[in-house]
Amino acid sequence: MPWKAVNLPFHQMLERIRAGDKSALACAITLVEQRAPERIPLLRGLFPFTGGAQIIGITGAPGSGKSTLIAQAIRAYRQQQKRVGVIAVDPTTPYSGGSTLGDRVRIQNGPGASDAFIRSMANRGRLGSIAPATADVATLLDASGKNRILIETAGTGEDELDIMSVTDVLVALAVPGTEDDLPMGKAGLMEAADIFVINKSDRDGVNQLEAALRESLALNRRPDNWRPRIIKTVASTGEGVADMIAAVDAYFQFLQQHNLALSKAIAKWQVRLLQMVREHLTELLLGPEYGPLFEGFAVSVAERQLDPYTVMERLTGIVTGGSSASAKTKTLRAS
Amino acid sequence: MPWKAVNLPFHQMLERIRAGDKSALACAITLVEQRAPERIPLLRGLFPFTGGAQIIGITGAPGSGKSTLIAQAIRAYRQQQKRVGVIAVDPTTPYSGGSTLGDRVRIQNGPGASDAFIRSMANRGRLGSIAPATADVATLLDASGKNRILIETAGTGEDELDIMSVTDVLVALAVPGTEDDLPMGKAGLMEAADIFVINKSDRDGVNQLEAALRESLALNRRPDNWRPRIIKTVASTGEGVADMIAAVDAYFQFLQQHNLALSKAIAKWQVRLLQMVREHLTELLLGPEYGPLFEGFAVSVAERQLDPYTVMERLTGIVTGGSSASAKTKTLRAS
Repeated sequence: MPWKAVNLPFHQMLERIRAGDKSALACAITLVEQRAPERIPLLRGLFPFTGGAQIIGITGAPGSGKSTLIAQAIRAYRQQQKRVGVIAVDPTTPYSGGSTLGDRVRIQNGPGASDAFIRSMANRGRLGSIAPATADVATLLDASGKNRILIETAGTGEDELDIMSVTDVLVALAVPGTEDDLPMGKAGLMEAADIFVINKSDRDGVNQLEAALRESLALNRRPDNWRPRIIKTVASTGEGVADMIAAVDAYFQFLQQHNLALSKAIAKWQVRLLQMVREHLTELLLGPEYGPLFEGFAVSVAERQLDPYTVMERLTGIVTGGSSASAKTKTLRAS
Repeated sequence: MPWKAVNLPFHQMLERIRAGDKSALACAITLVEQRAPERIPLLRGLFPFTGGAQIIGITGAPGSGKSTLIAQAIRAYRQQQKRVGVIAVDPTTPYSGGSTLGDRVRIQNGPGASDAFIRSMANRGRLGSIAPATADVATLLDASGKNRILIETAGTGEDELDIMSVTDVLVALAVPGTEDDLPMGKAGLMEAADIFVINKSDRDGVNQLEAALRESLALNRRPDNWRPRIIKTVASTGEGVADMIAAVDAYFQFLQQHNLALSKAIAKWQVRLLQMVREHLTELLLGPEYGPLFEGFAVSVAERQLDPYTVMERLTGIVTGGSSASAKTKTLRAS
């Protein structure tokens, strides 16, 4: 068992993470990043102690000032006695290259960094999305007592959109005078973001950008009736950061007041469960138990003895077991 | 059944596609792009008539001249009496926006376009990769008698790397004097590409680029011992395009001579089968039969009555059915 690396039995590992022990947390994050099978009992054991954190996505183009804004947010949260964790996602880092130290160090050196546990997540390569591991790290930070978890991504690519879908609230950064930094260009971001931050708002073009954002927002009435806030910040001086934090809190209050928290959580878990099942199925089909069967099927298709659609249905036949969903529901409920 | 749109029973639809009928093919491509369930019997019925085409991936940064090169390749293939199909992939197009007409029109107006069936594929949104639909369109084109299928992508993002993994041969474009257009920057591309094309090779910096490519290639000895070719082209004049086509043919000859075609096909089908099973599982969990069960699980997790790891294992328990792989293998072989 890899947690023997810290010479701890399972229950002590769990207790240490709950107590916020940094070396136990680092070990657990490594397990999660490596997708080690041992992560599952650990995460399951920690789940009852999660749910207390705001999971806040921070997205914006490279250069929009995400890391600086996060360093300031850490300071502001600290003044409120909040415990902050940060996950920086950089999918451009190649699979074998591990995490990017640059961002990690930059934020750790920022003000009030001592309460922030920072981890840059590397892309997991072709077969896996980076979303499940990111969500699992958030679970670990949540269980360890962090009550504000900031997930930073550039928001490019499918994978990063997937990550955004497991956050509770999404903050999108835009910078005046740089068309590229407008979040409007990105498919779905105008609809998905709950709060817009105009960073570097001491620059020219801030009014234009704000007007463009307001116009775009006016076209999208959200089903939940939340009106996305527009906050102006200058991350380098900390100006406006308290407003951003207040806007995040206001969003959570809005969800509570309108009894929307549960329906939001259900939607989030649907996305996350789908990611988890997909990932687990991939692990099974490439793992020691089903791997040989799966490879045998690939050989049969390559030799054109079986067609791939029949194979897909047979492999999915393992899924459905050939019986009806209602019978299955009964079995599952009984178990 | 959607193919009633063309007023045809299933077997006639199949026959018309095999005969290369463009309206039947367009209808089938629409079914595939929409991921309609009817696509599966159709693709299964057509599978025995596929396998005759070279599926050629063409990747390069925007502006590297992919479309122009492809228009010239169509002309060159026509002179060899080859039947060409082209799939242009543009994942930046939003889900609801359909295909990008720009590229389609550009290539259709090119020389010898009458034999090319061109389809720009739009991104399928968050839950699905664009790879399965792209591979299915290639299957349709293959069954319709095309023997050269060119898949054009900018090669950015996970999804497009997934598409590349279902091609038989990968051609990567680079342009002298533009650092961005060097394929070396992209993770995995130097290892994955079988042929490098230096396009716009009438520009300055061609020797430098060629030297850099050779140096980089010298560092990577491929397990199959193929030495990736470097071809210089000027797509706007057609210069070097015949050499590119010859290099593609040489690669297929190399695979035949060294008995590598089967092992390459097995590796390709492993990736593709995994994509197919993942996609099918997603369709099942969001579909009418399992959807309510799946949503009920999401509610239970959101209400914190069940932990997500237990749910994942229960949903995967539908996968494995709780019995061992060997028992399952027996059942599957008997079916």
